[in-house]
Amino acid sequence: MAADGLKARRRGDYKFQLEYRTRWSDNDMYHHLNNSIYYFLFDSVVNTYLINHCALHPPTSSQIGLVVHSHCDYFAPIEFPAVVDLALRVNKLGKSSVTYEIGVFERGQEEAKAVGEFIHVFVDRDSRKPGQHGTADELRTGLSKILVDKARL
Amino acid sequence: MAADGLKARRRGDYKFQLEYRTRWSDNDMYHHLNNSIYYFLFDSVVNTYLINHCALHPPTSSQIGLVVHSHCDYFAPIEFPAVVDLALRVNKLGKSSVTYEIGVFERGQEEAKAVGEFIHVFVDRDSRKPGQHGTADELRTGLSKILVDKARL
Amino acid sequence: MAADGLKARRRGDYKFQLEYRTRWSDNDMYHHLNNSIYYFLFDSVVNTYLINHCALHPPTSSQIGLVVHSHCDYFAPIEFPAVVDLALRVNKLGKSSVTYEIGVFERGQEEAKAVGEFIHVFVDRDSRKPGQHGTADELRTGLSKILVDKARL
Amino acid sequence: MAADGLKARRRGDYKFQLEYRTRWSDNDMYHHLNNSIYYFLFDSVVNTYLINHCALHPPTSSQIGLVVHSHCDYFAPIEFPAVVDLALRVNKLGKSSVTYEIGVFERGQEEAKAVGEFIHVFVDRDSRKPGQHGTADELRTGLSKILVDKARL
Repeated sequence: MAADGLKARRRGDYKFQLEYRTRWSDNDMYHHLNNSIYYFLFDSVVNTYLINHCALHPPTSSQIGLVVHSHCDYFAPIEFPAVVDLALRVNKLGKSSVTYEIGVFERGQEEAKAVGEFIHVFVDRDSRKPGQHGTADELRTGLSKILVDKARL
Repeated sequence: MAADGLKARRRGDYKFQLEYRTRWSDNDMYHHLNNSIYYFLFDSVVNTYLINHCALHPPTSSQIGLVVHSHCDYFAPIEFPAVVDLALRVNKLGKSSVTYEIGVFERGQEEAKAVGEFIHVFVDRDSRKPGQHGTADELRTGLSKILVDKARL
Repeated sequence: MAADGLKARRRGDYKFQLEYRTRWSDNDMYHHLNNSIYYFLFDSVVNTYLINHCALHPPTSSQIGLVVHSHCDYFAPIEFPAVVDLALRVNKLGKSSVTYEIGVFERGQEEAKAVGEFIHVFVDRDSRKPGQHGTADELRTGLSKILVDKARL
Repeated sequence: MAADGLKARRRGDYKFQLEYRTRWSDNDMYHHLNNSIYYFLFDSVVNTYLINHCALHPPTSSQIGLVVHSHCDYFAPIEFPAVVDLALRVNKLGKSSVTYEIGVFERGQEEAKAVGEFIHVFVDRDSRKPGQHGTADELRTGLSKILVDKARL
């Protein structure tokens, strides 16, 4: 979707949400959150969802998610010590991969500050290759709960 | 104070507190918060206090705090996606410097996971030297509110 | 360009290069560089180039670069303590914006581990809006030296 | 040792050295390396030494090193894109623990910018308790090569 469309995203367009406090070191020399920090936040909300709602246990699970692509559009700055809401949905759920979308909102404001996507491929922990039968059932079941209808993309 | 004494610290020993959510990348290869992350958290609770309660404005304030020393004792691990309480107090308020103590607690647990201190010297933004009259009044007033009696050190 | 084409990138496709040592904390629980770390590295090679070859001085320059979009394709893992080569080129130089491409290579290996792009809009430090006359001459001159012909995109 | 004594440290006081390039995000709002970043660098030089010279393999080794204490004295700022030399020595080698000292130097300058120590306790990977026979031989042999005489502390 074009960046213009994404700019119109609101919290209600997402199905899971976590509040995150920013850190002093998130601000760079220009006094706002460094662009890379958003990806750290994306990883945090996604993995919290996987651990708490999809039975992922990163140190031992037989399948783990590896990131093969990520992108982000930045609409407006956020400055420490702001508190942000990370809003998550699944845009696509393939045989072995999942595409997440994350919207970043600042507490007390309606408009999205940034919107990004990243793609996990679920692989066998040891071989690091996708499993023959695709994503494990527990992961798929949890992820399908935050999958959006294609009509809403 | 010896590490054994610090291990007995509880939330009630501190005067200001902030809740922080941990991030995926905070965990290192051993599946717990990397030791360095605690210092990022220390900086975050201290600077949030300075900004919200001592009128510090990092991009423009005439005085800024530079760290000249820091240390931390680690008692037990914390693992993402845990939520932590960062508890703050001032142990010493000198003419141009301040010694903070931070206790790190995990949500739902009484015992401290780590306790550290760091020392800010307040300097003139441009010269990066301490001011002739020491720490500015606004900073001193705010910091004195979380200063503990020496008897409680 | 599709990820398949980018996978064929080699060091010779870029015009500026810096060697970077990875850090212990770059590895996440899966024992390889976390996907977000690549964006820290992108920022580092780009800003080193801007400072050393385009006269940017982040604390005082009248124009600064703000990131409005970034993306990355990940082809193979890198593990601390690997040393990486960050290879940089400019893919597009607009009136007020520049699109960088960065290839990440591991010392001693030919194939790209990851390739990403990001877009800087150069804005006035105070207003945070693009200047009327676009990117300043010093920046444009430096950036044009690593601009690739469209035919090679 | 008092901070004044540490300030006199020179590269020659250490037995192992690695060059590290700083990153854009290392600089905080005050335009110099954030104090917490030094601990990331300490971890990086120590673990590079453990992996390359003491046969540590973090994902599988039966013994791993957990940090129980760390501290740092900061003497002068370092600013991205500076290149730093991390100089390492072992100050104490106990039955199950080791105390490292790291000096941070900037390329082309003699004086130390910061000096810190941290303590690893080597524990069994699974139980996370020190082994009955203390630190494994391979680790001890490698570490003893960079141990300084007490007379030089």
